Amino acid sequence: MIAAALRDGTAHRSCVFEVFARRLPDGRRYGVVAGTGRVLDALDRFRFGDDELAIARTFLDADTVDWLADYRFSGDIDGYREGELYFPGSPILTVRGTFAEAVLLETVVLSILNHDSAVAAAAARMVSAAAGRPLIEMGTRRTHERAAVAAARAAYIAGFATTSNVEAARTFGVPSGGTAAHAFTLLHTGPDGPDEEAAFTAQVAAQGPGTTLLVDTYDITEGVKRAVKVAGPQLGGVRIDSGDLGIITRQVRAQLDALGATGTKIVVSGDLDEYAIGALRAEPIDLYGVGTSLVTGSGAPTAGMVYKLVEVDGLPVAKRSSHKETHGGEKRAIRLARATGTIVEEVLTPPGIEPSVPSHLTATDLQIPLVRGGDRVSGLPTLTDARERLRAALVSLPWEGLGLSHGDPAVPTRFEAAR
Amino acid sequence: MIAAALRDGTAHRSCVFEVFARRLPDGRRYGVVAGTGRVLDALDRFRFGDDELAIARTFLDADTVDWLADYRFSGDIDGYREGELYFPGSPILTVRGTFAEAVLLETVVLSILNHDSAVAAAAARMVSAAAGRPLIEMGTRRTHERAAVAAARAAYIAGFATTSNVEAARTFGVPSGGTAAHAFTLLHTGPDGPDEEAAFTAQVAAQGPGTTLLVDTYDITEGVKRAVKVAGPQLGGVRIDSGDLGIITRQVRAQLDALGATGTKIVVSGDLDEYAIGALRAEPIDLYGVGTSLVTGSGAPTAGMVYKLVEVDGLPVAKRSSHKETHGGEKRAIRLARATGTIVEEVLTPPGIEPSVPSHLTATDLQIPLVRGGDRVSGLPTLTDARERLRAALVSLPWEGLGLSHGDPAVPTRFEAAR
Repeated sequence: MIAAALRDGTAHRSCVFEVFARRLPDGRRYGVVAGTGRVLDALDRFRFGDDELAIARTFLDADTVDWLADYRFSGDIDGYREGELYFPGSPILTVRGTFAEAVLLETVVLSILNHDSAVAAAAARMVSAAAGRPLIEMGTRRTHERAAVAAARAAYIAGFATTSNVEAARTFGVPSGGTAAHAFTLLHTGPDGPDEEAAFTAQVAAQGPGTTLLVDTYDITEGVKRAVKVAGPQLGGVRIDSGDLGIITRQVRAQLDALGATGTKIVVSGDLDEYAIGALRAEPIDLYGVGTSLVTGSGAPTAGMVYKLVEVDGLPVAKRSSHKETHGGEKRAIRLARATGTIVEEVLTPPGIEPSVPSHLTATDLQIPLVRGGDRVSGLPTLTDARERLRAALVSLPWEGLGLSHGDPAVPTRFEAAR
Repeated sequence: MIAAALRDGTAHRSCVFEVFARRLPDGRRYGVVAGTGRVLDALDRFRFGDDELAIARTFLDADTVDWLADYRFSGDIDGYREGELYFPGSPILTVRGTFAEAVLLETVVLSILNHDSAVAAAAARMVSAAAGRPLIEMGTRRTHERAAVAAARAAYIAGFATTSNVEAARTFGVPSGGTAAHAFTLLHTGPDGPDEEAAFTAQVAAQGPGTTLLVDTYDITEGVKRAVKVAGPQLGGVRIDSGDLGIITRQVRAQLDALGATGTKIVVSGDLDEYAIGALRAEPIDLYGVGTSLVTGSGAPTAGMVYKLVEVDGLPVAKRSSHKETHGGEKRAIRLARATGTIVEEVLTPPGIEPSVPSHLTATDLQIPLVRGGDRVSGLPTLTDARERLRAALVSLPWEGLGLSHGDPAVPTRFEAAR
């Protein structure tokens, strides 16, 4: 596309691209913007080095390769803040620049936002279902090795307490924590058979009694007894990774309390998703460890966002193919809320057109400047800001918006036409 | 775990870990091993540098950090070849080494195999459904930016013809190809409105008449007419990305033939999965472009493999928790087939025990040496070998194994106990 556009001169036309999702994943009530910070990091590094140019030369003409060698995005980007909610049509990112410089970013922008937002949306539902109890991200082994690092970041935005991915701690400052696996208990096997007590003793020697011991390798009741015997009643926690967690956690709580370990926490894990977490709400569980369903978006592994050209040289453009119509023209996004803070509508208007806001509602602009002249603007929200934003945004949803059941988007999106 | 095991001396015990899937994703008939080559690449690079050690120091004792600083895997790895089929329990990878050196690889090994095998299994079903027509991988924008490169590699193993991911071409030598997007057509809009012909003219000028023109931005019939007008009847292809592809492709084929463009290929894309591909089998379609469903494993985004300790100092070990039992002890894997080549059973035996093979069946060993003393063995299968292996393996399935409908694994797995 760039080769052809450089050749006929259209490459330099002034363009606006918008990132949005045509719809939310099946039955979801809201989306969560995540990945914007990673998009800006990627933009800083988005250059073509010798290796990349070498392969470009195998299928592109010299003029296009030269253009790639000099590539540096020089345009403007606006977008929703990370941690903000979005709904169908929400212009999550608006990229302004020449056709060539802006179209080249399509893939990296969508890859990041589609992945991170999918994980964050699933994570937010799990956090809601946990109703204040902390969640641990432990899905690294169930997704691509680099995707896992981004997933831990997205989960943190959504309210997860910690991650088991130390690289996410290193790269993004996500709080990290770990746990022992069954292999560690099994390792302590000798000619006389399993020796769970030796495993617990070794772990407590290394980590102190505040550690969490995995008690379900053999017999859970015996495991709990041994754990308290080794660590004392000040044992930090026990983890249970299998079985009927409702029944077992009640038994384990009673057993711990009877042993005087009233402060010992119960951590559960094992194929949990938002529904399983919700179903365990009445049980004496202190922490949930979530893996597979988190990193795979709990049934919606991609947010399905698209990157669409909406304006060329100031003129709105739109595809007319069946079922894939886009709304031409750059859009300003505002969200209307009642005095109570409950949101009622997402309104998209052409820039310069003041949206009609009923007098009993307040309007909040959703887009902020992210990049100007190719450079990231200063003072952008941090990861902690994103986490706080989502926490506040979820409170603003109409009550049915936090339901786990399938339904329509929590608020409608209205496209206001130019007048 | 390593800190505690270094302290009590168990870190140096001789261990065997096995990678396997307890079950296939819901209703799937077979799994496809993919990622083994990437695991070996990752092993070559698996070292702890200053940045990694700095964060390790924040939560690990000095002895453990020193051990990490010197880390280099020195053990042996055997495994199934890439492109091989697997079934529940198949020991896809067997890692032998000390506890500490082997347990440390769990996450990277599982991340790679779970991701790549999930994509390859979905891709293989799509290739089967396409019944010989080529498929193009174009899902990069719907998954994490690095996962996308691995997904393109996995799709190639599974039989996809090309990828739109140029980084996969650069890194792994996967054949790549591209296509124009609607944005390129929309770019050619002026004060007088859309100018599809200008877009087609620019593309043909840059790529020659053998290019594939996207004809569904406005009106498909007009688009096809303009495409042939601009490129002539030697036009390489037209792409259709929306609408009822069955009806439309028949109309477009008739129109192309009437215009003399009898050799022009029809490429379809747009939310295709293996079911949609199968349903279009009777239509005049020459190429399928597949994105989202491929990179997300078409409903099964992870293969759900686990990395389990099965042997310590020569003794079998196994977890006894409910529903998560593992079969202790290292296993040798063979596959039994009839004289026709059709496979009938996967048999797992303790090493040194000759499996019982009925006289009318032949047995094939499934594991090959991959790493010896920490070094990759020479002459391992290439990506092309993996592709050929899967092609041959799919032919060996019982006929119901290639069905797209949900069902049981195509062949059972039998665990043969030590005698």
